[in-house]
Amino acid sequence: MKFNNRNVFISKKATIGENVRIGDNTVILDNVEIGDNSIICNDCVIGEPLNQYYFDSNYENPKLIFGSNSLIRSHSIFYAGSSFGNNLSCGHRVTVRECVSAGNNLTLGTLSDIQGYVSFGDYCRLHSNVHIGQKSTIGNYVFIYPYVVFTNDPHPPSNICQGPTIGDFTQIAVHSVILPMVEIGQNCLVGANSTVNKNFGDNLVIVGSPAKSICLTSEIKSKEDENKAHYPWMYNFERGMPWEGIGYAEWLKLNN
Amino acid sequence: MKFNNRNVFISKKATIGENVRIGDNTVILDNVEIGDNSIICNDCVIGEPLNQYYFDSNYENPKLIFGSNSLIRSHSIFYAGSSFGNNLSCGHRVTVRECVSAGNNLTLGTLSDIQGYVSFGDYCRLHSNVHIGQKSTIGNYVFIYPYVVFTNDPHPPSNICQGPTIGDFTQIAVHSVILPMVEIGQNCLVGANSTVNKNFGDNLVIVGSPAKSICLTSEIKSKEDENKAHYPWMYNFERGMPWEGIGYAEWLKLNN
Amino acid sequence: MKFNNRNVFISKKATIGENVRIGDNTVILDNVEIGDNSIICNDCVIGEPLNQYYFDSNYENPKLIFGSNSLIRSHSIFYAGSSFGNNLSCGHRVTVRECVSAGNNLTLGTLSDIQGYVSFGDYCRLHSNVHIGQKSTIGNYVFIYPYVVFTNDPHPPSNICQGPTIGDFTQIAVHSVILPMVEIGQNCLVGANSTVNKNFGDNLVIVGSPAKSICLTSEIKSKEDENKAHYPWMYNFERGMPWEGIGYAEWLKLNN
Repeated sequence: MKFNNRNVFISKKATIGENVRIGDNTVILDNVEIGDNSIICNDCVIGEPLNQYYFDSNYENPKLIFGSNSLIRSHSIFYAGSSFGNNLSCGHRVTVRECVSAGNNLTLGTLSDIQGYVSFGDYCRLHSNVHIGQKSTIGNYVFIYPYVVFTNDPHPPSNICQGPTIGDFTQIAVHSVILPMVEIGQNCLVGANSTVNKNFGDNLVIVGSPAKSICLTSEIKSKEDENKAHYPWMYNFERGMPWEGIGYAEWLKLNN
Repeated sequence: MKFNNRNVFISKKATIGENVRIGDNTVILDNVEIGDNSIICNDCVIGEPLNQYYFDSNYENPKLIFGSNSLIRSHSIFYAGSSFGNNLSCGHRVTVRECVSAGNNLTLGTLSDIQGYVSFGDYCRLHSNVHIGQKSTIGNYVFIYPYVVFTNDPHPPSNICQGPTIGDFTQIAVHSVILPMVEIGQNCLVGANSTVNKNFGDNLVIVGSPAKSICLTSEIKSKEDENKAHYPWMYNFERGMPWEGIGYAEWLKLNN
Repeated sequence: MKFNNRNVFISKKATIGENVRIGDNTVILDNVEIGDNSIICNDCVIGEPLNQYYFDSNYENPKLIFGSNSLIRSHSIFYAGSSFGNNLSCGHRVTVRECVSAGNNLTLGTLSDIQGYVSFGDYCRLHSNVHIGQKSTIGNYVFIYPYVVFTNDPHPPSNICQGPTIGDFTQIAVHSVILPMVEIGQNCLVGANSTVNKNFGDNLVIVGSPAKSICLTSEIKSKEDENKAHYPWMYNFERGMPWEGIGYAEWLKLNN
């Protein structure tokens, strides 16, 4: 129904794996490498050249590498010069610029805007409309919710460009702003609509503008079972996680 | 000028009404039904298959139904499995996932992102860049302004998914966040940049983070006539409303 | 690599300058004028007709004028009826409606949404995902950061439509909301996540919800050199500015 090979353009310099499906009106440019069993939907531009292309006649695209089982939904744009592990899953209208390095199982929601020079660990999830400024560093199992912005210029405009650093398992709720160079530890929860302008350690609930730590995440009761703490969330949530089906405790044992 | 029938794809399993115009590079997939006198502009994907499509070889698109006089502007994406009344009007780059049920005269602004499993009454208006999370319920004549987010997970990530419920005529101003399961009554005004984390009744002005009720909407004077209250707004605003030309008071009489 | 002239449509009523490159799947409609040495990338709609087009069989597109050296990136939409100076530079998925008037060297970031009836001076920069409501007035060298919203209806919904007015050199940081009719002077800095609901004069740091002036911009020390004030920023930032290479002080002398 969907993959009719209409108006598809694939550069001769692109490398396409086995069993890859490509949607109508999609363009795949030079030096793109797409892993086996991947799906690129309609109206995408994959391997968009960097800015130098427009001015340098000797320009050549740096490699853009997708692992196997990638799923990139329609109207998305990936610049050349990034590398993604296996099982990348993207919503629609995603924009990802150059020099992004991501582990396995990254999810990027619809309208996400990754400005480049960003690193992601494994199993990160960005929901719709997240904006990650350049020079941000994001750990493993970090989930970021809609309309969160990571910034990188402390006194705009200046010549400084340095984004935040986020520890493993931390959750950043909707509409929060993380200011430049801020470091947030592991297992934190940043509440909705917060403005985080200083560093925080591990296991903290961080809320407000400017944000303050109000308690430990372990003090938050589960809404599914009032006798349990909800955080660390890994014990209570497994959809799409490597511990799905066996639970986090068992998975930890098997992996230690 | 605009409708040149270039690179248009229409599935043989789609049903297209009388006098429908379809823009260049648009794809209309299986089991889409488009009402008479509708316009679908350029670069759209209408009837995007659900996620199962990628994994289930027996997958068939559920129906996607648009009433008559629909206008869907360019670069928009509608998933299969939703139903809209007459006079749907969309901006550009709208994304609407499955299991949305909407009455007549819905307006969706540019960049709106409707995550699916949402119900809208009649005459709702979403301005640009509104994000409605799954399992939200929106009454009649509800207007939602740019960068508002409806959320559905109280302790992210958890297994709970339940969005807000909004009463008739309520207005939600720019950049506000409505937290999961929150119920807001009829005829309320939520102020700009608010975070609403609890339930509110009818006729209230609700502002701040966390949001509080500061007065009745009837206490707000009109900026067009200082001797009048502006709310209930239906007595002072009629563009595109069913009482246009006769006024709300007269229309109420005719309809009771 | 990128410009292969595949599925490009150019109206016979459009005027294309010398050395213009146009990307695949792009549509250029009636009465568009593109200056020399410009680049329009893939999947754009340039000269989108105004709303009247759908209802008036005598409709004709008003002119849409781009100066020389324009660069419009992929998936962007410009309505007919606006005018831009030289060196316009746009990100991806920009939406610009009618009756926009801009000076030279305007930059519009990815996902920016300009609702029309807006004027920009020279050298303005909108970063990603800025929303400018109708009837806004923006001076010269104004930089606006991601997820800022300019509004225009004081009591939604009403019949009033009047946006903010922003003075030269003012910087508006991420996620701020500027309320209708608000006037902000020159050389101000609006902090992240602020809600500005009243007028402010020149040289002020404006923060909070509702926003207050907390000090003069001159009191902010540079993060690059603690012995210097960072603002007025023109003395400390020159990338892409007309004083690049000679400094603002020298440039001022040459231009007075």
